[in-house]
Amino acid sequence: MLGAVPLPQPIQRILTAALEAVDPYRAVAQALRSPDAETQEALASAKRWVVVALGKAAFPMAKAAADVLGNRIARGVVVTKRGHASGQLPRFRVIEAGHPVPDAGSQRGATAIFAALEGLTPDDAVLVLISGGGSALVTAPRLPLTLADLQRTTQLLLASGATIEEINTVRKHLDSIKGGGLAQAAAPARVIALVLSDVLGDPLDAIASGPAVPDPTTFADAWQVLSRYQLTDRVPARVRALLQRGLRGEVPETPKPDAPFFARVHHRVVGNLRLAAEAALTQARTEGFAAEIATTTLQGEAREVGKVLVSVLQEMARHQHPLPKPACLIWGGETTVTLGEDYGLGGRNQELALAAVPALAGLKDVWLVAFATDGTDGPTDAAGAVATGDTLAQAQALGLSPWEALTRHDAYPFWKQVGGLLQTGPTQTNVNDLILLVAGLPEKK
Amino acid sequence: MLGAVPLPQPIQRILTAALEAVDPYRAVAQALRSPDAETQEALASAKRWVVVALGKAAFPMAKAAADVLGNRIARGVVVTKRGHASGQLPRFRVIEAGHPVPDAGSQRGATAIFAALEGLTPDDAVLVLISGGGSALVTAPRLPLTLADLQRTTQLLLASGATIEEINTVRKHLDSIKGGGLAQAAAPARVIALVLSDVLGDPLDAIASGPAVPDPTTFADAWQVLSRYQLTDRVPARVRALLQRGLRGEVPETPKPDAPFFARVHHRVVGNLRLAAEAALTQARTEGFAAEIATTTLQGEAREVGKVLVSVLQEMARHQHPLPKPACLIWGGETTVTLGEDYGLGGRNQELALAAVPALAGLKDVWLVAFATDGTDGPTDAAGAVATGDTLAQAQALGLSPWEALTRHDAYPFWKQVGGLLQTGPTQTNVNDLILLVAGLPEKK
Repeated sequence: MLGAVPLPQPIQRILTAALEAVDPYRAVAQALRSPDAETQEALASAKRWVVVALGKAAFPMAKAAADVLGNRIARGVVVTKRGHASGQLPRFRVIEAGHPVPDAGSQRGATAIFAALEGLTPDDAVLVLISGGGSALVTAPRLPLTLADLQRTTQLLLASGATIEEINTVRKHLDSIKGGGLAQAAAPARVIALVLSDVLGDPLDAIASGPAVPDPTTFADAWQVLSRYQLTDRVPARVRALLQRGLRGEVPETPKPDAPFFARVHHRVVGNLRLAAEAALTQARTEGFAAEIATTTLQGEAREVGKVLVSVLQEMARHQHPLPKPACLIWGGETTVTLGEDYGLGGRNQELALAAVPALAGLKDVWLVAFATDGTDGPTDAAGAVATGDTLAQAQALGLSPWEALTRHDAYPFWKQVGGLLQTGPTQTNVNDLILLVAGLPEKK
Repeated sequence: MLGAVPLPQPIQRILTAALEAVDPYRAVAQALRSPDAETQEALASAKRWVVVALGKAAFPMAKAAADVLGNRIARGVVVTKRGHASGQLPRFRVIEAGHPVPDAGSQRGATAIFAALEGLTPDDAVLVLISGGGSALVTAPRLPLTLADLQRTTQLLLASGATIEEINTVRKHLDSIKGGGLAQAAAPARVIALVLSDVLGDPLDAIASGPAVPDPTTFADAWQVLSRYQLTDRVPARVRALLQRGLRGEVPETPKPDAPFFARVHHRVVGNLRLAAEAALTQARTEGFAAEIATTTLQGEAREVGKVLVSVLQEMARHQHPLPKPACLIWGGETTVTLGEDYGLGGRNQELALAAVPALAGLKDVWLVAFATDGTDGPTDAAGAVATGDTLAQAQALGLSPWEALTRHDAYPFWKQVGGLLQTGPTQTNVNDLILLVAGLPEKK
């Protein structure tokens, strides 16, 4: 499954273990078969179940629910990215929508979800299956806004340098499904939300814009964000008017933490980067590595992060610090790539690995493996790349310069020619990125 | 010695141990009192000693030699940075020169060194004491070049984006003391060179431009560097003419590795970042920390490195990885700060610590301590800064924003007002930077 890259078996098994630990189907099936107390109680008492799955992993998550709950499901809705649904599920409506830019499918998805949640009673239960991408895939512009109004506002905020928290504060006040809107629509039914987290630290209000999570922010906060970035006069007139009506109390606020129906909402994170990293750690130790997790909240500019990580790998290879050989140090997170005006083809993991190539040159038995758990690193067909102590020599034999490729943000052609691309295909899961630093290999048992 | 920053005693003792391990006086005294085989042989056989000390730590290094060797020293020369000499030494000439820009003192320094090395015999020994800054502090422009010619060429290379290796290739061909020139002048005497390394990985040819190290590069290499950066027509005419004569073989090459006198040259690194990091490690373990060295070759843009390091500190504080609490993870290296057009006052360590502030906020019992071992971080009177989980709240109480300070590269005023500056004063040593990540403190014994 890992493409043609010559990766030693023990390292391949670590990657496989990490991905399996966050497989969306398995995560949901396991959460329902080994339920926590709240889920157990819901399973014991609910007369009928409605399943709502949204996000890039919605289909396999819904499939697992269908396989476990079977006829207890009265109806369900899956809203996922175009091309991510694999067939139909009995009693489910399956809708494909746009990502990363929401489209008419995203509105159809929200409408179908609200319709499925109508007329529920306190004896009913709603299983909400949430994964990354849900923000774009499901959208319900507040009347009288249009989808274009929302898109334009988001574009302006993205270009302004606003943080993702600030952008979400505005979006939750323009979209009636985000920021607890789904939970409000499900009341008075009980809600069990199983979450596959694609945001570092698992902030529930941020994953898919928190459709079942209270929104403590207010219209005043949203207005302040637009003011801060000088956007109050630039957003569409309907958006400005709606927010101003909200400021005057003429439009209902988003559901706040004291709303009584949240007492019947239970969230459980069934898959995240931490689980993947811990599975990698367990497998690495099983393989015979001295292994540790360095972080699960890695951030920073990919090329600079690559320099830091290679400095640690040098230490491992040369001085047996911070781990003795054979050593495997696991890093989880999500780096960024800041593009200039000219750029080629690549992704954050390919760029990070590329930045490591010069300093790795000549080291024996070292591997830096950087990959996106969803199998898609940037707009490429690769999950990431593998740099070794031989990469520089291999590149130079082909007349390739890692420095030039780095300068042009053109990592993909470099790795493709050197033979260092890691290709898993789409994995259906998405819990950010993992990077393994490996020095030495365990002796075969 | 660490200023007013409220740093717990165990952390202060770790810093102190690290600095003491690379104290220039102690390093030289110890190397002469516990000599390696070559030094031992020289001490046993040499009839008289000439001491040549160059670099920012030249004075204390020469003082140690004078204290140990006493009357065996026939004469000596110290060339150090203006303000770094503390008095006179018997039979030594002490010269102060310009740094980072060489000046007339730098030429006087080279002249004095060549004079001291005249007329030596095979029975004599030269003790060369090398520390960082030597490249600028001692310069002997090849005839007919002027100091201004060298300065202009260096400025052009620095602005062109050439690497330090490329710059040194050119400089060694324009300056008769660099790249083995000092060793050549000392022949036929024996040479013992004790080195306090300020370059990561201790490349002897790079520290103070390798005055006693063979130079494998050629006039052709130097010319190629100028060509690569389109500088052949921009360097001073005398520089261009000299290099062209060198290309035609009309000027002697720099001393090459097969020059016979190098057989009588012995180098020993008596202080470097690795020694400082290992001393910190030993002290941290003595204090009761679970401790490790993460790297001694840390590089990268300071603000991005700060983000990576804080992600590891989060892991230590929250998940007991990669070390269980109380934990101390030691990083050594030298980061960079890329300034835009507008910038304030700061240094790479203060900027790195500043970038860590937001993500540290709220964590209990965590410290990120980043400092320059020479006590001077950037053009400031601070060695670095200490960030904790309380820094953000303290800053906000004062109306300060770490984001704003970071954007403006204005870390010093931020840390000064928050009370997080680490001020050691000049330490006389310089082995790059150390960063400690600390989570939890050992119980008092």
